[in-house]
Amino acid sequence: MHCYSLVHDDLPAMDNDALRRGQPTVHKAFDEATAILAGDGLLTFAFDILARPETHPSAAVRVELVLRARARGRARRAWRAARCSISRPKDASTADRCSGSVKPRFMTLQAMKTGALLSFGCRSGGILGEAPAEKRAALERYGSAVGRAFQIADDLARCGGRSGAGRQQTGKDAGAGKATIVGILGTEGAKARLRTLVAEAASALAPFGSARLF
Amino acid sequence: MHCYSLVHDDLPAMDNDALRRGQPTVHKAFDEATAILAGDGLLTFAFDILARPETHPSAAVRVELVLRARARGRARRAWRAARCSISRPKDASTADRCSGSVKPRFMTLQAMKTGALLSFGCRSGGILGEAPAEKRAALERYGSAVGRAFQIADDLARCGGRSGAGRQQTGKDAGAGKATIVGILGTEGAKARLRTLVAEAASALAPFGSARLF
Repeated sequence: MHCYSLVHDDLPAMDNDALRRGQPTVHKAFDEATAILAGDGLLTFAFDILARPETHPSAAVRVELVLRARARGRARRAWRAARCSISRPKDASTADRCSGSVKPRFMTLQAMKTGALLSFGCRSGGILGEAPAEKRAALERYGSAVGRAFQIADDLARCGGRSGAGRQQTGKDAGAGKATIVGILGTEGAKARLRTLVAEAASALAPFGSARLF
Repeated sequence: MHCYSLVHDDLPAMDNDALRRGQPTVHKAFDEATAILAGDGLLTFAFDILARPETHPSAAVRVELVLRARARGRARRAWRAARCSISRPKDASTADRCSGSVKPRFMTLQAMKTGALLSFGCRSGGILGEAPAEKRAALERYGSAVGRAFQIADDLARCGGRSGAGRQQTGKDAGAGKATIVGILGTEGAKARLRTLVAEAASALAPFGSARLF
């Protein structure tokens, strides 16, 4: 599901990215039609995997995974719609775009993007393991915090001129006039927020006691 | 699920259609990014509907619907891949393209496209109604035959210069060098095949006895 969203987000009509994870994006390596069909196929395949008997013996567990995955898709669309509506003007300088005032609505939507993915991944473990409600909620809080932390770390790497594990072209979001978390909180503000989120993620695992791995 | 496939198939990188059901296609009425996201959203929404408790009280029934819907997605991709590989040369005349020899492989793939959709729709009724295996199989045969009949009727309308309920631009497929069922069987051959399929669809409903509606 994550790969499908990346393949479609990279399309010329969307983010128009030529590189992903240091490799040509699908529409560059093949063509646009292939990238559209590959994304459609991956999305369909994701639901197929969740629904298969080998995923879990209980149909109720599998159907809950499908419903949770749907929430992840909804978050992606809300994120994209909002990202467009709050983007900075294209003629602003990069420095202007990498500084700015706090916009709480942006923070919420920023968190939805990667946070919803990681939260779904963590919550799925709880569903598959048929964990009690308290532990499921803890896993979701953990995933949500890690997701928001990842996004800030990614934005810091981009505004700092590093390419964040080669995942994207450095400074591309800022150059295309898109709002970033660093542009809103400032570098130091973003780093402080990152530390808070990492601590939040770690404390969310408290219900697991000595069973936690880190 | 059907609408998602139409929205994506109409994209410039795919069939590049400007009209659908007599209205501008999504990427014409809005833009390409909206059409890509709308299709992704519709596909995700389709699985969501199938998985919801209000669709059926039994999770096993709902999860079976999700698995069946996946088969429909697979058929679409196989159809598109094959359609490209067997298309006629672009410099052939329309008359050449609307005549030709029978290709059994093409017939099979042609049937997959709309047939898989209608077969899924009919089979879903059997799954939702928890019908016995014999009746489920009968509904699937009926849907498959109706699906293949629809595709031939649609191709006949296009090659005959009628626009088939305004669904597509007349002659567009032939003009773009794509293989059609009429091009392979000829007009009379296609009409004969259509009659056979309609009879096959009607007889498939026999197990329903006096319960059948037509």
